[in-house]
Amino acid sequence: MPAQQPDDSPASVTREALTDLLGALAYGELSAFDQLAKDARLAPTLAGRVALFQMAALEFGHYRLLAERLSELGVDPHNAMAPFVVALDRFHELTSPSTWLEGLVKAYVGDGLAADFYREVAEFVDPSTRSLIIAVLADTGSAAFAVREVRAAIAANGAVSGRLALWGRRLVGEALSQTQHVLAERDALAALLMQGSGDMAGVGALITRVTDQHAQRMLDLGLS
Amino acid sequence: MPAQQPDDSPASVTREALTDLLGALAYGELSAFDQLAKDARLAPTLAGRVALFQMAALEFGHYRLLAERLSELGVDPHNAMAPFVVALDRFHELTSPSTWLEGLVKAYVGDGLAADFYREVAEFVDPSTRSLIIAVLADTGSAAFAVREVRAAIAANGAVSGRLALWGRRLVGEALSQTQHVLAERDALAALLMQGSGDMAGVGALITRVTDQHAQRMLDLGLS
Repeated sequence: MPAQQPDDSPASVTREALTDLLGALAYGELSAFDQLAKDARLAPTLAGRVALFQMAALEFGHYRLLAERLSELGVDPHNAMAPFVVALDRFHELTSPSTWLEGLVKAYVGDGLAADFYREVAEFVDPSTRSLIIAVLADTGSAAFAVREVRAAIAANGAVSGRLALWGRRLVGEALSQTQHVLAERDALAALLMQGSGDMAGVGALITRVTDQHAQRMLDLGLS
Repeated sequence: MPAQQPDDSPASVTREALTDLLGALAYGELSAFDQLAKDARLAPTLAGRVALFQMAALEFGHYRLLAERLSELGVDPHNAMAPFVVALDRFHELTSPSTWLEGLVKAYVGDGLAADFYREVAEFVDPSTRSLIIAVLADTGSAAFAVREVRAAIAANGAVSGRLALWGRRLVGEALSQTQHVLAERDALAALLMQGSGDMAGVGALITRVTDQHAQRMLDLGLS
């Protein structure tokens, strides 16, 4: 009887994909923390700055939950995050807001996009991991703050809406582009997405759902 | 019978001083959050970055407790913090670390200095406020991390210790200087410090205790 080949067994593929999924999500939370703390400096008021700091602090709490789960699985969280550092840092570099409103749109739209994508992928994993992912993606109430501020800014000066709408398209474009880079390099994660969706058409449908929800979110902000 | 003059009564002086104390402490936590999140970018490893993010997230939790107490007292936290924004921002501008080790020394020494000072002042206020202040100043375990990293860096390269010792002196100098600016402008807070200490000699003794503890902290880091 041959020795077991853990790297070839389906269970092992799932474990690798699970590690990748939690690692990507964990580094997503860390880099969101960093970005929100930085973008808070663009706030015109102390209240606005506090609102973004609060979102950042919540992301760190989510990171902690994900890192704990990785440790429980016997995986060093830093090792699990490492493969996703370049793509996520690159996303944030390419979409660094230059105004407070761009920062708010990014906080709302970027967070929402990531949440929709991970919620879809959470359907493909075990119930315990699914619950954890859904918990860390729970809306933090900060969405209402961003929507209110952006709508008020547009009401005060309609001219900002065109530029912010373009900004929203750039955010989704860069997010899709970096996701593709990651999937091209992480076979287990790509396989999870493909198997979970059923086939290429299923993956296409998933992307369509995520981008439709993005379009709805832009409308919520008063952008088209 | 004359109408009560709340601004002249001792109770009102205490309330003003209390608002100032909690406001200064709250903005101290917010600006520490901001600074730690920024300094984390100097970290050579993801683990180091996470350690500073974690300190930052804890500071935000402390800010929340202070802001809640201010709200309970009927004071808008943003108004209470406003008088301290310039001095604290100036402190952080003048002591912006240029290396990871400077950032760690600042996190450890700056946090410790502030904690020692506020713990002294907490003796002059009501027990409930005192408990809150002591709770938000509780060591977060991050001190051990900073001490370990700085000592290891000095062991690896003794040459860094001279520059870091100078840096520590600069930190305490700027902290004292900005505290003086604040006290010169906030009469109620200055009165609380003077009355609590008894007299000018008492204030002097308080400053000596705080600077002695600072010297001990520098020794803990392996700096003299």
